[in-house]
Order: sequence, then structure tokens, then C-alpha cells
Amino acid sequence: MLAKNILKEFETITDYWSPKIIGELNGQYLKIAKIKGEFVWHDHSDEDEMFWVIKGEMDLRFRDKTVHLGEGDFYVISKGVEHNPKAEEECFIVLLEPKSTKHTGDVTTDVTKSIDEQLKG
Amino acid sequence: MLAKNILKEFETITDYWSPKIIGELNGQYLKIAKIKGEFVWHDHSDEDEMFWVIKGEMDLRFRDKTVHLGEGDFYVISKGVEHNPKAEEECFIVLLEPKSTKHTGDVTTDVTKSIDEQLKG
Repeated sequence: MLAKNILKEFETITDYWSPKIIGELNGQYLKIAKIKGEFVWHDHSDEDEMFWVIKGEMDLRFRDKTVHLGEGDFYVISKGVEHNPKAEEECFIVLLEPKSTKHTGDVTTDVTKSIDEQLKG
Repeated sequence: MLAKNILKEFETITDYWSPKIIGELNGQYLKIAKIKGEFVWHDHSDEDEMFWVIKGEMDLRFRDKTVHLGEGDFYVISKGVEHNPKAEEECFIVLLEPKSTKHTGDVTTDVTKSIDEQLKG
């Protein structure tokens, strides 16, 4: 592979809540997404998921608390923990999760993107 | 866990080539390191390894080529591929690799850090 630049990869994203797969290693996908607004409540029963804010800020909302992430902050959501991300303004995030991870867990909504769609970015 | 900030984590590192584990998910460790100078030739026979430059620049040297990484650039080294990182000036990197990954592969040198040492950071 060639080296990739994270900021250049973000330039290719035009839609919110539509992750793009930018790397693969050890059965995991590295993804980027631009988010704005509210997502949907969901969990990933078998997969831990890392959120890392590259630009902007966001809230990781859980049923019992909210974790605010500013630029450079990261957080690992343990498998099975229900969450719903929200960003008041546009926010750039990096996600790391197993290849098996479904975008919205066992929930399917209008915003759900398949892995094929995430590979196209 | 609490959210962590990547730049604050780097502030805790005082030695070059001494990775600090800052996160764990799905059998992988997220690590950070400050590097300067030349490392050692090694490979990880069963583990892919991601390098991501947060600040500065570095060369990922392979036996048949060199991949230059500037700020924001990332690269996945496939399992079994011999490599030797080098940075002319201080460079901040993020590493992602399976928990089983040995610092310098099957080579043990004066610079080799155990996982216990990497957990202490």
C-alpha cells in the first residue's frame, strides 16, 4: 500500500454519518467519518469500538452518562454498551472496530451504511 | 474508562523508542511513542502494525524501499515484513498492533521494551 494522509482522506467525504474505510489490519478496519447532528441508539454486541476526534467536538451519549470528546480526545466503547453519538457542529472522527462491526448494530435505519458502502467511502 | 487526550498522553513520554500503551480494544493495543534516530531491523511474523505520524516526520525503511511519513500520514506494515523506522528529528507516532506484538519482534536488543514496560509508559 501507499502511505495515506488522514486530512486528505477527510476531504473525500461528502456525507455525514457515512464512514469510509481507510485501512485494514489484524481483522480491524480503520475508518473516518464526518458527523453532525444526532445518530441512533445502538450497540455492537461483540465488538469494542474506538472514537477519536480529529477536528471539532462531540458527545458520546450512553444511557447513564455522556462523555464529551474534544479535539484529540479518544474513547473506547466496550462491546455491548448502547451509545448514540451527537455533534452540534461538524466533527471529524476516526473509528477503529473489527471488520464484523455493523454500522448501527442490530438496528437498521435510513442512515445505516453497509460495509460495501463504507469501502467505497 | 475516561476519555484521554492524545497530545496530553505524549507529554508523559520522556524516552525515545519507548512505546506507551494508551488504549486496548478487540485484542489490539493503541500505543504512542516519541522517536528520534534509528531503530533496529525486525519484523512481526503474525501481526500487522500501523504507524501514524501525529507530529514531525519519519522514514519507514524496508529492505526494498523507504516510505516517508509526514504529519497525518499513516501506513500499515503487513505481518512478516522486515522494517526499521528512522526519524532525523523528534517525531510523535501512534501505533496500533495486536497485544501479542513484541517490540522488536524476535530480535532482542538494548532498546527492547516489554509489554509490562509499555503499560507503565
